[in-house]
Amino acid sequence: MSSVLTDTQSQGDNRNVSIDRVGVRGLHYPLQIKTEEGSFSTIAKIDLAVNLPADVRGTHMSRFIELLHSKSQNFDLGNLNDLADLLLEKLNAEQGFISFSFPYFREKMSPITEKLSLLEYGIGLEINASGDKVDICTSIVVPVKTLCPCSKEISEASAHNQRAEVSCSFRSLESPSLGLIHRLIKEIEDSSSCELFSLLKREDEKFVTEKAYKSPVFVEDLLRNIKVRLDSYSELVWFRIEAENFESIHNHNAYGLIECDKR
Amino acid sequence: MSSVLTDTQSQGDNRNVSIDRVGVRGLHYPLQIKTEEGSFSTIAKIDLAVNLPADVRGTHMSRFIELLHSKSQNFDLGNLNDLADLLLEKLNAEQGFISFSFPYFREKMSPITEKLSLLEYGIGLEINASGDKVDICTSIVVPVKTLCPCSKEISEASAHNQRAEVSCSFRSLESPSLGLIHRLIKEIEDSSSCELFSLLKREDEKFVTEKAYKSPVFVEDLLRNIKVRLDSYSELVWFRIEAENFESIHNHNAYGLIECDKR
Amino acid sequence: MSSVLTDTQSQGDNRNVSIDRVGVRGLHYPLQIKTEEGSFSTIAKIDLAVNLPADVRGTHMSRFIELLHSKSQNFDLGNLNDLADLLLEKLNAEQGFISFSFPYFREKMSPITEKLSLLEYGIGLEINASGDKVDICTSIVVPVKTLCPCSKEISEASAHNQRAEVSCSFRSLESPSLGLIHRLIKEIEDSSSCELFSLLKREDEKFVTEKAYKSPVFVEDLLRNIKVRLDSYSELVWFRIEAENFESIHNHNAYGLIECDKR
Amino acid sequence: MSSVLTDTQSQGDNRNVSIDRVGVRGLHYPLQIKTEEGSFSTIAKIDLAVNLPADVRGTHMSRFIELLHSKSQNFDLGNLNDLADLLLEKLNAEQGFISFSFPYFREKMSPITEKLSLLEYGIGLEINASGDKVDICTSIVVPVKTLCPCSKEISEASAHNQRAEVSCSFRSLESPSLGLIHRLIKEIEDSSSCELFSLLKREDEKFVTEKAYKSPVFVEDLLRNIKVRLDSYSELVWFRIEAENFESIHNHNAYGLIECDKR
Repeated sequence: MSSVLTDTQSQGDNRNVSIDRVGVRGLHYPLQIKTEEGSFSTIAKIDLAVNLPADVRGTHMSRFIELLHSKSQNFDLGNLNDLADLLLEKLNAEQGFISFSFPYFREKMSPITEKLSLLEYGIGLEINASGDKVDICTSIVVPVKTLCPCSKEISEASAHNQRAEVSCSFRSLESPSLGLIHRLIKEIEDSSSCELFSLLKREDEKFVTEKAYKSPVFVEDLLRNIKVRLDSYSELVWFRIEAENFESIHNHNAYGLIECDKR
Repeated sequence: MSSVLTDTQSQGDNRNVSIDRVGVRGLHYPLQIKTEEGSFSTIAKIDLAVNLPADVRGTHMSRFIELLHSKSQNFDLGNLNDLADLLLEKLNAEQGFISFSFPYFREKMSPITEKLSLLEYGIGLEINASGDKVDICTSIVVPVKTLCPCSKEISEASAHNQRAEVSCSFRSLESPSLGLIHRLIKEIEDSSSCELFSLLKREDEKFVTEKAYKSPVFVEDLLRNIKVRLDSYSELVWFRIEAENFESIHNHNAYGLIECDKR
Repeated sequence: MSSVLTDTQSQGDNRNVSIDRVGVRGLHYPLQIKTEEGSFSTIAKIDLAVNLPADVRGTHMSRFIELLHSKSQNFDLGNLNDLADLLLEKLNAEQGFISFSFPYFREKMSPITEKLSLLEYGIGLEINASGDKVDICTSIVVPVKTLCPCSKEISEASAHNQRAEVSCSFRSLESPSLGLIHRLIKEIEDSSSCELFSLLKREDEKFVTEKAYKSPVFVEDLLRNIKVRLDSYSELVWFRIEAENFESIHNHNAYGLIECDKR
Repeated sequence: MSSVLTDTQSQGDNRNVSIDRVGVRGLHYPLQIKTEEGSFSTIAKIDLAVNLPADVRGTHMSRFIELLHSKSQNFDLGNLNDLADLLLEKLNAEQGFISFSFPYFREKMSPITEKLSLLEYGIGLEINASGDKVDICTSIVVPVKTLCPCSKEISEASAHNQRAEVSCSFRSLESPSLGLIHRLIKEIEDSSSCELFSLLKREDEKFVTEKAYKSPVFVEDLLRNIKVRLDSYSELVWFRIEAENFESIHNHNAYGLIECDKR
C-alpha cells in the first residue's frame, strides 16, 4: 500500500531555499541513561532536527521518533557521537541537531544529622553534527542559596538571602561523564553561600543558616568564584556560567553571565 | 449568505446530556479597567463560559468574543453584574462563568530614600451567574518577604529568608473596589516579615533587612496574621488565604491555606 | 545537640487560629510506582500537607520529606490509604492532603503500519484523609484530535481540526488501578475525532486524517460522548470531564466541563 | 545617612575576573510605547544588564530600575539608541544589554462578515550597546494556521491542520518601526495556510477552512515562503525565521529554522 501513496516530502522544491534546521520539538520521552557510574531513569524534553537541501521539499518527521524510540532504553551518555551518526544516516542529512534536557536527582546527606534525601538538578545535552564533526555542549542547572554581602555589611543583624539557580554549559575534550558533572556541581555549590537540601532537621538548618551568613556572595561573586574554580579544569575548552538570584527583597531577579573560550 | 449555512450548533442533541460549562479559555485581551479611583490599562487572561441544556448541540463561541470586545475598553470593576447579565442574554443561557486575571502595578515609595517604582500584584475576578444571582469572587496575589523564626532562634546570627507569595480570594457584600483591594494588600504586606519593592537604595536595603529580622514569620504565622486582620473586615463574608514560601534552603516550597466562611 | 535547640514549631500560639492546610509544595521527586500490571518509573510533582490546630505554632516540614523519601521507591498505587495513614501518624495530624501528578507513557501501535512508540499521558492523585476516612480522587490527562462538525458541514472540503486535551477526574469504589485508567483512556480516545500517536508513517497518517474527518466532534460532543460511556462504569461514583481544544483557527481555546455525582 | 553605609559593590575585587553581563532579569513593567503610528500600552518582560570590569566587585542594581521607571511611560520605539546610551552612562559601563518582550494586539476584521476583534502577537527587542555601537534585534511572534500537504495528498478528504507559531527576528538598517512590523506580520500570515482571527462567524469559518485547504504548507514550506518574501526587503540585513506546528496528529511539535545574513 505504501507504494501507492505519494511521497510529498520527497518531491523537489523550486524556491531554491535550503533550510537550516527542521525536525521535531517539545517531545517528552522516558530515557534510561547509561553512564560510567551506572544507569538511571529520567524523562527528557527532546528536540531533533537536520538541515534540508534546497531541492528537497520536506524531511521525514517519523524517522526522528523511530530513532529516539530505538535508543530511549539504552541512551549512552559516553557515546553521543553514535547517536549523531545515526541521525545523519537515518535522515540522510549533512547536519544534525539534538537537544535533550532532563531532571537528575542526586542523593544528598544533610550536613549534621546525616539524613538522606534527593535533590533535583538539571542536565542538558546539545549535540551538533556536521559531516564527521560532532560538537557536544553539556549543561547543568544547580540550585543554591545566596546571601547578600551588602545587606550583611550595612545591617545591624542578618542579611537578605534567597534561592538562586546556576546554569553552567561546557564543552570538554572528552565526552561528558557523570563524574565530571558531579565535580562541577560541587564546585558550583561550594561557590555559593550554601548548597541546598530537600531534607533538613533543626541542627542542619542551624548549620545552613550560619554557613550562609559566613559566606555572603553577590551574583557577581558567585560567578567569579565558579570561574576561578573552573579555570583549573583543563578538560573544559569552553564554558558559560549564568547565575540568577530570586531576590527576596524584590519581585524580580538578579542575573549575571561569564563566558570563557579557550579554543 | 448566512441563511444558507447550516447552524450545526443549534441542532438538537439526543444524548440527553447537559453541559455544565462550555466557552472560550486562555484568551488574552487588553482591558481598560474603570474603578472608583480612576482607570488603568492591563492585559488579562480570560475564560468565558455558559451552561448548555441537553437538547442543544453547541454554544456559539463567537458571541463570547463579541461580548468581550465590546466591553474591553470600558470594563467597570464596580459593575460586574451587568457583564454577567449581558453574557446570559447574549448566549441565551441560564448560568454564566467569567474569569479574568491580570497584573496590577502600584507605585510604591522606598522606605527611607523615598524613591518611586512600580510593584506588580495580581488581581483575579471569578463571576458566577445563575438566573438573577451573581456571585463574585475576587483574588489578589501579593509578593512579600518571609524570614524563618526557627532559623533565627537556633542560629548564632541571621536567619534564612525568601520571597513568598500570598493569594487571597474573597467574597464581599459590595462589588469589589480598588480601595478594598489596596487595604487588603496592605494587611497582607504588614503581616509578612517585610513588603517588597522594585527599587531600593542602600539605606532602604538596610531598613528592609533589619525589619525582616525583627519580624520573623513561618508560613503559618503569615496566614494567621492575615486571618486575624481580615476578621475585622465585616464586608468580607468569605475568604481564603494561601501563602507559599520559595524556601531559600530548599529547592521546594512551604505552603499553607486558611479558609473562612461567615455566610 | 538537638536537645539544646529550641523547637519553635512546637511552641504554643495565642492567635486562636487553626490552619486548614500546611506543608510542602512543588516538590519534584522520582517515583517507582507499583501497580497490578507491574511497576514503572516516573517523576512526580508533589504537594503534602496536614491541618494544624490553633494551639500549635508550626508543622514539622522535614517530616513530609522523610515520609516521601521512604516511600518513593515503593509507591503502591493500590494502597494509597497506607500512605495517608502514615502521613497522619508521622505529622500527628487529624487531616492530611496529598497530591501527586506525573507523566505516564504508554506504548502504542500505529494503526496501519503497526509501528511502536510511546505516547505521554498525565496521571494525578489527590488524597484527602480525615481521621479514618480517606478520599481518593484520580485524574488522567489524555491528548486527542478534534475536527469541527460545523466547519465540515459548511465547507466545500476539509474542516478545521486541532490537538485537544481531555482531563478526567474520578472517584471510584475501589482504589484506582492501572487497568481502570487504561480503560478510561480508551473511552476518551474513542470519544474524540481520533487518538494521537507519536509515530505515524504515511499510511497511518492517511488513516488518522480520514478517521477524524468521519468523526467530527465539537468540544461539547467530546464531553457528551465521554459522559455517556462513563455512565456505564458503575465503579465511578463521581467524575468530572474537562476538554480543551487548541483551536487551529483562533489563538485561544474552546473549553467545556461536565461533572457527575452519583454519591 | 547614606555616607555612613559601606558601598560594598564599589569595593575592588582581586579575583581578576571580568563579568560579561550582570543586571536584573524577569522584571515585569507596564510600558507606554510611542511609535510613528501613535502610542499603545503593554506590559513587558524585561532584562537589563551591563558588563563589569575585573576590578569592580558589583554593579548597582537599583540604577537599572531607576532607568526603566523614568522611561516606562515614554518608551520610544524609534529611538532605542538613546535608551542604550542612558544605560551605559547611568551604570558607567562599556557594554549594555537590554531585552524587552511584550504582547501586541492588533485589530483584525473577519474575512467575510467584517467583524472586528483583537489578535495577540508578540514583539521582542534585544539591544546590545558597546561603546558607540548599538545593535538592535527585533522579533515578532505570529500565530497562524497550517494544513499538511502530505495529509491532503494521500487522504480521500480533508487534511490534518493545526495552530502554528512563527517567530521572526531581524536586524534592519533603520530603527524598527511599527509599519515594518505590520508588513512583516502580513508576509508571515500570507505565507501560511491561513491567518488567525479571534472572532469568526459561520461565513468566516467557511472561508478560513476552505482557504487553508487550498493553501497547504509543511513547516518547511512556511519557512521558505517567508524567506522568499523577506528577501525582497532590502532594509533587512539579517533575519532568522522559526516556525513551530502544534501538530494535531501528535502530542509533539514540528519545527524548523532558516537564518539569513546579508551583512
